[in-house]
Amino acid sequence: MRLRDNLYSETTWDIYETRYDPDQMITSGSNFMIGNGFLGYRGTFPDDRAEQYVGCIVTDTWDNADGVWSELVNAPNGLWLQVLAGEDGGPLCWREASPDTWRRTLDFRYGVWCGEAAWPEAGIHMVEERFAGRDELHLLAARTRITASSPVRLEVRTGIDGQSWNLNGEHLPELVLRHHEGSGTVEAAGRTGQHHYDVVVVQGERFSVEGRTPGEGRAPTPAAVVASGRRIESSRVISLQPGETVTVERYVGVFTTNDLRESGDTSVEAVRHAAAAVVQRARNSTWDALIQAHRAAWDGLWQDLDVQIDGDELAQTVLRYNLYHNVIATPIHADHLPVGARGLSCQAYQGAAFWDQEVYNMPHFLYTRPEIARNILTYRYRTLPGARQKARDLGYQGAFYAWVSGDTGHEICPSWFFKDVLSGRPIRNHFNDWQIHISPDIVWALDRYIEVTQDRAFLISCGAEIAFEVARFLVSRVHYRVDRECYEVIRVLGPDEYHENVDNNYFTNWQVRYACAAAARWYRELHSSNPAELAEIARRINLHEKEPGQWEDVAERIFVPTPDPQTGLIEQFQGFFQLEDISPEDLKERLLDPGEYWGWPNGIAVATQVSKQADVLQLMVMHPQAEELEVIRRNWEYYEPRTQHGSSLSYAVYATSAARLELLEDAYRYFLRSCTVDLFNTGKAISGGTFIGGIHTAACGVAWQIAVQGFGGVAVTTDGISLDPHLPPGWDRLTFTLRWRGAAVDVTITPADITASSRRESTTELPLRVGSAGWRQLLPGEMVVIARG
Amino acid sequence: MRLRDNLYSETTWDIYETRYDPDQMITSGSNFMIGNGFLGYRGTFPDDRAEQYVGCIVTDTWDNADGVWSELVNAPNGLWLQVLAGEDGGPLCWREASPDTWRRTLDFRYGVWCGEAAWPEAGIHMVEERFAGRDELHLLAARTRITASSPVRLEVRTGIDGQSWNLNGEHLPELVLRHHEGSGTVEAAGRTGQHHYDVVVVQGERFSVEGRTPGEGRAPTPAAVVASGRRIESSRVISLQPGETVTVERYVGVFTTNDLRESGDTSVEAVRHAAAAVVQRARNSTWDALIQAHRAAWDGLWQDLDVQIDGDELAQTVLRYNLYHNVIATPIHADHLPVGARGLSCQAYQGAAFWDQEVYNMPHFLYTRPEIARNILTYRYRTLPGARQKARDLGYQGAFYAWVSGDTGHEICPSWFFKDVLSGRPIRNHFNDWQIHISPDIVWALDRYIEVTQDRAFLISCGAEIAFEVARFLVSRVHYRVDRECYEVIRVLGPDEYHENVDNNYFTNWQVRYACAAAARWYRELHSSNPAELAEIARRINLHEKEPGQWEDVAERIFVPTPDPQTGLIEQFQGFFQLEDISPEDLKERLLDPGEYWGWPNGIAVATQVSKQADVLQLMVMHPQAEELEVIRRNWEYYEPRTQHGSSLSYAVYATSAARLELLEDAYRYFLRSCTVDLFNTGKAISGGTFIGGIHTAACGVAWQIAVQGFGGVAVTTDGISLDPHLPPGWDRLTFTLRWRGAAVDVTITPADITASSRRESTTELPLRVGSAGWRQLLPGEMVVIARG
Repeated sequence: MRLRDNLYSETTWDIYETRYDPDQMITSGSNFMIGNGFLGYRGTFPDDRAEQYVGCIVTDTWDNADGVWSELVNAPNGLWLQVLAGEDGGPLCWREASPDTWRRTLDFRYGVWCGEAAWPEAGIHMVEERFAGRDELHLLAARTRITASSPVRLEVRTGIDGQSWNLNGEHLPELVLRHHEGSGTVEAAGRTGQHHYDVVVVQGERFSVEGRTPGEGRAPTPAAVVASGRRIESSRVISLQPGETVTVERYVGVFTTNDLRESGDTSVEAVRHAAAAVVQRARNSTWDALIQAHRAAWDGLWQDLDVQIDGDELAQTVLRYNLYHNVIATPIHADHLPVGARGLSCQAYQGAAFWDQEVYNMPHFLYTRPEIARNILTYRYRTLPGARQKARDLGYQGAFYAWVSGDTGHEICPSWFFKDVLSGRPIRNHFNDWQIHISPDIVWALDRYIEVTQDRAFLISCGAEIAFEVARFLVSRVHYRVDRECYEVIRVLGPDEYHENVDNNYFTNWQVRYACAAAARWYRELHSSNPAELAEIARRINLHEKEPGQWEDVAERIFVPTPDPQTGLIEQFQGFFQLEDISPEDLKERLLDPGEYWGWPNGIAVATQVSKQADVLQLMVMHPQAEELEVIRRNWEYYEPRTQHGSSLSYAVYATSAARLELLEDAYRYFLRSCTVDLFNTGKAISGGTFIGGIHTAACGVAWQIAVQGFGGVAVTTDGISLDPHLPPGWDRLTFTLRWRGAAVDVTITPADITASSRRESTTELPLRVGSAGWRQLLPGEMVVIARG
Repeated sequence: MRLRDNLYSETTWDIYETRYDPDQMITSGSNFMIGNGFLGYRGTFPDDRAEQYVGCIVTDTWDNADGVWSELVNAPNGLWLQVLAGEDGGPLCWREASPDTWRRTLDFRYGVWCGEAAWPEAGIHMVEERFAGRDELHLLAARTRITASSPVRLEVRTGIDGQSWNLNGEHLPELVLRHHEGSGTVEAAGRTGQHHYDVVVVQGERFSVEGRTPGEGRAPTPAAVVASGRRIESSRVISLQPGETVTVERYVGVFTTNDLRESGDTSVEAVRHAAAAVVQRARNSTWDALIQAHRAAWDGLWQDLDVQIDGDELAQTVLRYNLYHNVIATPIHADHLPVGARGLSCQAYQGAAFWDQEVYNMPHFLYTRPEIARNILTYRYRTLPGARQKARDLGYQGAFYAWVSGDTGHEICPSWFFKDVLSGRPIRNHFNDWQIHISPDIVWALDRYIEVTQDRAFLISCGAEIAFEVARFLVSRVHYRVDRECYEVIRVLGPDEYHENVDNNYFTNWQVRYACAAAARWYRELHSSNPAELAEIARRINLHEKEPGQWEDVAERIFVPTPDPQTGLIEQFQGFFQLEDISPEDLKERLLDPGEYWGWPNGIAVATQVSKQADVLQLMVMHPQAEELEVIRRNWEYYEPRTQHGSSLSYAVYATSAARLELLEDAYRYFLRSCTVDLFNTGKAISGGTFIGGIHTAACGVAWQIAVQGFGGVAVTTDGISLDPHLPPGWDRLTFTLRWRGAAVDVTITPADITASSRRESTTELPLRVGSAGWRQLLPGEMVVIARG
């Protein structure tokens, strides 16, 4: 199936290209990447180098090399491989290979990259497969098969290329390169400048020619190893007869200091040893056994995380592509690491969490694998000290979560990052200090987690403290307006980032009210149910008993914009409707330079009603019961044509709400736009000389929400699961898994009926409702088929 | 005495130039202007036209011709005169006259402009004098004496030139030109587009040749009158013998609809009649009698308004120049008109009041002619409806005074006025909606007026209502911060206009506290002393009895930054000290274009500690007892080198406070800078193509404060008058007049002693104190000489 020019799918579990397109170099490198939440390895070619944006981005390595940007390390590339052959013995460049048999494939069922290329003049055909271990996270494995079509003498160079591409400075300023003759491995070890984290990459390989054994005269020569600059290369020479194939397997172990924190020994020797051990174990196994274990791990995930669409292969393919990227971006193995806004696809967005994490990435896991959601929320608990610090620094109480949150939760969003392209001067954006909704958003996610899991232990160990500290922050952040007898929230950015410095943003004020109410609710609950534990929390954070009353007071008396009785419209923020009303298309005409930033402080959108992304609608998607359906419709109709979609978070909101409003054509259109942000490269990868490429992981995660919560019409609440599906035309079947407390349920929606099947592993009854019908209980192991009205 | 290149003074009551300098065309036109608070007539030459920025700006004619700018009308020029002579009979241009005898003089004792020029090739020498009637405000009078040095045939053209220079559109789109043969006058009548105000200019003249009587053969020919386009000209031909002089007197009456509001008949006929009557009366009198009456009126003013400096002619001259301009800018005849920030020197700044009016222009009158201050405050009372409207429009209660206040007090400051010269886009500055200190500043001035006059009647009729409405506004504008248990003032501009959108600005918060306290104090006082009148005020403005308690609560609990215990520094606003610390000179290097605006939203000063003007110090000058002297010193030393003086309001603050701190060299330097803002043209007259010239009337008014309150060390409080002088080196004597309640006292300070003489007209004893000595009472008619320690 052709997805677009030079992009195809065979199975709906893969994408492939059939020619190299230099214009798409950055995008394809991201789209075809492999990864596992510990590291991300970009989908570049074996012989690519820094100029081709090779990336092996390793989490938990935050380093600030330029005084501004804290970002993850791009580790030395252990999968580097170059073949020299042909008359002149020159290198065979993958990007310049014959277009006839050229193909780059990503199998996203199992996270396997596959490249195929031929150099007819040299008589060479190559296929490389690679994966980042799903079961063994520190392993990168590649197998390259080089086949001769005529007698040929090859030189195969492999090794570690430490000349890494970096966005903001060199993070491993010195690289120690070693060759271990005993094990036949090479090693590159560097140390970050800021925190002195060791980052070690060890590479070992296995050469074989079909039918030959080592020692035979035509086997590869022993490796000649050369270390030079930041690169260490092994070189082997081998002669092949027509039809013969040499296979080069490479196993790369990647370890850093922070991966050994729990072991107690974080010496550089321990890190080196750990990386070497990964290679050792892999070489003690076989390629087949390794990939088998890797696949099994993926199968286990997909069992819950997949969403199946029958009848629409395009939708199925793009959806799975997004789910895959959401999974590989997420450190599901850890509870102290964030989901990066660009995952591990590059260093952009600092490998760090934004509100995207809770609102866009997490629901996919929350309702299918809640333990992953718990990890994400535990990360927020662990980063409370950073959030407290930020609040203190800005003169507030409690926890003001970082807009850009790395390992510690201290704010790493610089104050200056965009550039005014007309003057060349940096712009002081206030994402870090004015976009306060991040804190209540986390409480919102926490409440969703508690709601669906009833994980009281987590509430006591982590959740309550988060909520109390956020509520505390909010009490110090809101302002009471004496004449109006209400609280206001002054000077914020809502989700629509073109409008900084606004007051009483509907989304923000709603979330503030919600978070304060949730904190107070949990306080009152724990006061009854767990007084001793509550007392311990209160002691720990020095909570005064008057504070919950303050949270309640804010929740009761905060001003939140309401629908206009005539029009049903809700004003995005105070004064929004007084701004110039112009379409995004007409507004764009005013650009003096295509690279101009549209927003604060004097971009073209600032004084207009053109929004970067959904704002009012965003709230209505996160709180489906916040407003009447008719109000949602009125607001969808008003805001949608005024939205410029300058954020990849935008489409999903319009898609999900359109599905609910039965605007199925719009919903489907926005679903596709959301799912193809990266795949069809609708954005820019480089802007004003700055790399902003990489995978939009929020759009990836939210694909699940559009499908399940939008088209599937799923609402998971404290009452159970309700379904009110609106399938797009052509969708014969939509299948997904949900978890609600002890129950795991497989749901299949067809135009005719809904089948819900509670797995045998379920431990609780599941209250289930379809449309406006009453609740029914689904017992463990039970299946129900409900005809659709 | 030479003041600077091409600027001199003979008597310290005048300035003159000896050559025409086209580069200073705008500045000289302003500096040499005449006026009387009703109209301002720029100091241009008789034959100048719109291109030379001829201006006859008439107050109370606000008109918006371009949809953006509301500004005063530049009335048709009734003093136009052109002489044609010489071999070719061409016009004699004043700007191109012989440099030998060329002189332009302004006598600012009597507001008389005088030009002298000669055209030797034509054998002509001319002298013109003109004045704007101080006793008859609607009269402009000019007398031109044309002397022949050889036999010559002249043509003298006079009339009304309606081709006026306008900043923002034509305000009198149609001009009706009339010639009244009976009276021999010409007339130009126009009507403003917005409010249909009639503006009428009538001109009549008198020709005479010494020694000749009408009818004599060589008398001027009868006038030939031609009306063409927007101009009406009379032409006369006359032949002169060597040594003969023809004198052309012109009398111009200027009237508008609004000048007749009280008469009840505002028909265009009434306006025309009124203007004609002015001319008629003047022609029935003589030049000498007219100028005599005019001078007498000025003498009456100077008796109180002058400040005399002996021993420093430069200081004396520049000081009197400024006092003169403050007087002619002020509509002392009316209580419904503002003092324009550029007075009536041009249309810039919209002929409108800023906070300058109360803080810079008014004290000169307040302490010398308090009835003029009362007029100014009555203007603020009359404009309460506009201020209420502004508050309502922005979602507040009470009275939020206009940042730019014309006749009605409705905000006429546009939202967009500066231009980003790099992009060409307009800038949204928030002077109109965030610079809230204007409201409490008015209460501050009101309190000063009540303090010095004890004018209880005014408090009851006007003052209390202003104060209550301002306090009401402030209660709705401040925000209570629950965690800090204090009120904050969020998002303001303080006096330093480079920093918009700041919180808890020391100046603003102090003033808010002060105004709320004053309103509450007056409420409580009137509650005891005038309960019936208070009840009537309360009824009128629907005042709830809980409101004064709210004002008191704000006054008690508002956060106002205090001096750092270590450094004594007060932070200008929250976060100011975190901004980049750079000198104005170094900062200037960053300009990409000299025309760039330095401030909001992304000018070069925004993220730095460079201030446009004094801010913290401004408060300390307005409230001399606000902080310890040592704190004032520390802050002077900190802020002074960080101040760029982008506002003409800046120098005076540093001058006045430096005098008090006995930094006499700095004080004198800043005094001169403040007094020569216009005189030495230290600013730009045109910026980014926009005319920003004209007289900085605030700097003019505040000159009195520097001299009397700064160097004279005068503090006028409820206790009486105290003096703590610090005369600059070389000042042998400083003499001025003060009024305090019923007392009028003439004060003379010398290095040796202080003489205070209570005039016989005084009706009360005056408590007087020098330095730290005790209070003494000065009886009416009494004089005391106190030796200085």
